[in-house]
Amino acid sequence: MPQTATVIGGSFTDADDRTARRFAESAHTYSTGVMPTAQFHAWLAERALSRRHRVDLIALDDLDGWSADPETGNLGHRSGRFYTIEGLEVVTGHRHNPTWSQPIILQPEIGILGILVKEFNGVLHCLMQAKMEPGNINGIQLSPTVQATPSNYTRVHQGNAIPYLEHFITAGRGRVVADTLQSEQGAWFLQKRNRNMIVEVTEDVPVLDGFCWLTVGQLHELLAVENLVNMDTRSVMSIIPLATPIDRPSLLDEDSFRGALLRSLSTRPDPNDATGNLVSWFTDVKSRRTLRRRPIPLHQTKGWLRTSDRIHHEDERYFSVVGVRVEADDREVTSWSQPMIAPASRGVLALLTRQVNGVLHALVQAHTQAGTFDVVEMAPTVQCSPENYDEGRPLFLDYVLSAPASQIRFDVVHSEEGGRFFQAENRCLIVEVDDAFPTDVPDGYAWATISQLTDLTRHGHYFNVEARCLLTCLHTLW
Amino acid sequence: MPQTATVIGGSFTDADDRTARRFAESAHTYSTGVMPTAQFHAWLAERALSRRHRVDLIALDDLDGWSADPETGNLGHRSGRFYTIEGLEVVTGHRHNPTWSQPIILQPEIGILGILVKEFNGVLHCLMQAKMEPGNINGIQLSPTVQATPSNYTRVHQGNAIPYLEHFITAGRGRVVADTLQSEQGAWFLQKRNRNMIVEVTEDVPVLDGFCWLTVGQLHELLAVENLVNMDTRSVMSIIPLATPIDRPSLLDEDSFRGALLRSLSTRPDPNDATGNLVSWFTDVKSRRTLRRRPIPLHQTKGWLRTSDRIHHEDERYFSVVGVRVEADDREVTSWSQPMIAPASRGVLALLTRQVNGVLHALVQAHTQAGTFDVVEMAPTVQCSPENYDEGRPLFLDYVLSAPASQIRFDVVHSEEGGRFFQAENRCLIVEVDDAFPTDVPDGYAWATISQLTDLTRHGHYFNVEARCLLTCLHTLW
Repeated sequence: MPQTATVIGGSFTDADDRTARRFAESAHTYSTGVMPTAQFHAWLAERALSRRHRVDLIALDDLDGWSADPETGNLGHRSGRFYTIEGLEVVTGHRHNPTWSQPIILQPEIGILGILVKEFNGVLHCLMQAKMEPGNINGIQLSPTVQATPSNYTRVHQGNAIPYLEHFITAGRGRVVADTLQSEQGAWFLQKRNRNMIVEVTEDVPVLDGFCWLTVGQLHELLAVENLVNMDTRSVMSIIPLATPIDRPSLLDEDSFRGALLRSLSTRPDPNDATGNLVSWFTDVKSRRTLRRRPIPLHQTKGWLRTSDRIHHEDERYFSVVGVRVEADDREVTSWSQPMIAPASRGVLALLTRQVNGVLHALVQAHTQAGTFDVVEMAPTVQCSPENYDEGRPLFLDYVLSAPASQIRFDVVHSEEGGRFFQAENRCLIVEVDDAFPTDVPDGYAWATISQLTDLTRHGHYFNVEARCLLTCLHTLW
Repeated sequence: MPQTATVIGGSFTDADDRTARRFAESAHTYSTGVMPTAQFHAWLAERALSRRHRVDLIALDDLDGWSADPETGNLGHRSGRFYTIEGLEVVTGHRHNPTWSQPIILQPEIGILGILVKEFNGVLHCLMQAKMEPGNINGIQLSPTVQATPSNYTRVHQGNAIPYLEHFITAGRGRVVADTLQSEQGAWFLQKRNRNMIVEVTEDVPVLDGFCWLTVGQLHELLAVENLVNMDTRSVMSIIPLATPIDRPSLLDEDSFRGALLRSLSTRPDPNDATGNLVSWFTDVKSRRTLRRRPIPLHQTKGWLRTSDRIHHEDERYFSVVGVRVEADDREVTSWSQPMIAPASRGVLALLTRQVNGVLHALVQAHTQAGTFDVVEMAPTVQCSPENYDEGRPLFLDYVLSAPASQIRFDVVHSEEGGRFFQAENRCLIVEVDDAFPTDVPDGYAWATISQLTDLTRHGHYFNVEARCLLTCLHTLW
């Protein structure tokens, strides 16, 4: 892997363009002998029945190993590791609500989210894991091959070794296909990011209990199922290199949403730097916006109340900090308790799209949240929890919620990372606007092609996790 | 400009590839009727003689409008604007010197460094300014068309309007060629970055007193002159899009350093994502390194002494904070005083290069300084002030300093931004290694092609300002 690649030069080049075409081929393959989708569902159901795990909400005061600092109220583990929940004061240039304070998770280390891929019968397959997380609504979801924090892999909690991790941290075990730092939920994490990786191997890989190989096409099918493909998987999938299927001209010529989508991808890799124009728009917004933050003691967060049970906002909006106790037999350790963030209501993530000269464009916004890594990141057109607003409802929210079925291309509920967030659901929508939709967009919004967006997923800190999730969902519409 | 570009799509594409070829043509043009280089030198000499400006070192206590906070010792202006000098405690994973504290400049706003370009006689010219900065060794240096902080252009100090600024902040006045946030000196600035912009206009532009049009080739010639082309110019020049001169096949076939350099540029725009491999190496290092910082009162910085005159390190190493008084007639205001950073000794910035199969590669390192925006940035092979070290001298420093003349391709002293740094010189070196140089490189170093490096200058926070400076110097060797 990278440490040993002393000359990072042209040697990989020919292979890489072919890689994007091979992933596109995998995205078009739904049926394979390795793990047919019907069999996958049976396998997953069987696992859900046979694995025992139990998650109970408990009082914060009853957490084992976690306690509030007497002086600050900050929540932390007695080992000093994992994460802490502290207070943050935020000052922005927002018109509505320019300044506030809130609890936020601090976890400064960079974890690895990695998908191992390998070719079977000429088609790339992804090694996926059926993984229990305490915040998952339905217990088990489909996660990347590896989800590991340095705390995990340096064995702070004395659990079992993380399977397959060696492919992502050991030199020379496979070929790195994609590898960038990507940010996590800015509403609840302070400047958290993880290393998103895709590594291809050719060697034999044993399939351990709880793992299976699926094509990208199968994953796309499964993204139509509620709360099944977890956030980490959706995040890593957003950095999969994909090329327009030039060997399928009929698809490209199609007068359809799908045709417009594939044509929108077709200038990647972009020889002409249209991406530079999107970067310039982003640079301009980032230069003009402000985000100033100051750590404060958790018990000084204004409007937030602490009981022995939980920490919540006086309006019962936004989110609470709750305690959970977990008993499981398929995790590194078999029982533990931890504080988690539980949102007060379901969110809406929506990407508006439109065809311009037969090429699909998506409307992104430059968005700031408390924990945003660097002032702004590109977010979906709409990203909010509607119940948090009495007035000043976010732009385009009502347009999205009242869109007729004929304009809705994708509408599935997915949930956020179940390791930190308790039953945090978002309704994920992709909506094609009608002809009456205004061409001009407000300050801080821009229309971009899928090629431009895909180009920038190769770098960190352009897109927030919600935008990456919708980009992944968009590719299911091929 | 970007705000109004509601559809940021394919419309710019054809033009952009051509732009890189047009800049390459400008880089090959040294003689033009607009401002012949000999005439330029006469013009600059005349300006240096006729403009009056006087810079005096004064005691910090004698600064007008600036004072130390009685509680913290932090230096600030009575208006609360411009910048402050505060204390910073730094914890890194460095083997030598893992933790220290130091004074550092805080200036959270994002300024604009912009070069306006326009075609004359079929060749692109850059509008350059002969500008006095108090820290300049020789008074006047060549700066971009615009150097402006928001303090400047919102008129905090009640000076004159900044000429040409409207091209960089007003919609629709020109075509944005490049536009990214790039970081400044991490040794002395806390997470400072500026917006680096290149804007092309076709309309008539009046040439004001102190400005002149020069080709990229002329700027390359001037980079061979000590302390003439200022840091801001060198930074903006590093994001100029450049294409291999495919219309000059004899250059590309040359068995020379220049031929290897041009071949190294020739895969840009890179259709094969070799850049992805460099990004992966960078992601890996960034994930493994740590940089934790805490603001502290300036008077609590350990080892730093404050007198009425200045703030300096007890070993008289690193740098001092000094006061200067300026009287000038060619700045927005005609006299002022300000604190500045004065390095204790001259620095060395060196890029090692080697030919691999006839293609030039440069050795970059992942480097952390007190103020680095995000853990690490790519830096030159060597970046240090040798006199700061008794032991633990930086890797490759002695190799560079003892390289025979036959291996040295570039060796010119340039200085850092004269608005904040007082006579801060660096010896800028580009050295081709001999065949005996080891192929393996230490952890945190990587060989990269010029194409890979150029590809990443289109994004912020990959390269520190010293790396960008050497990349600009490298292009003078075409």
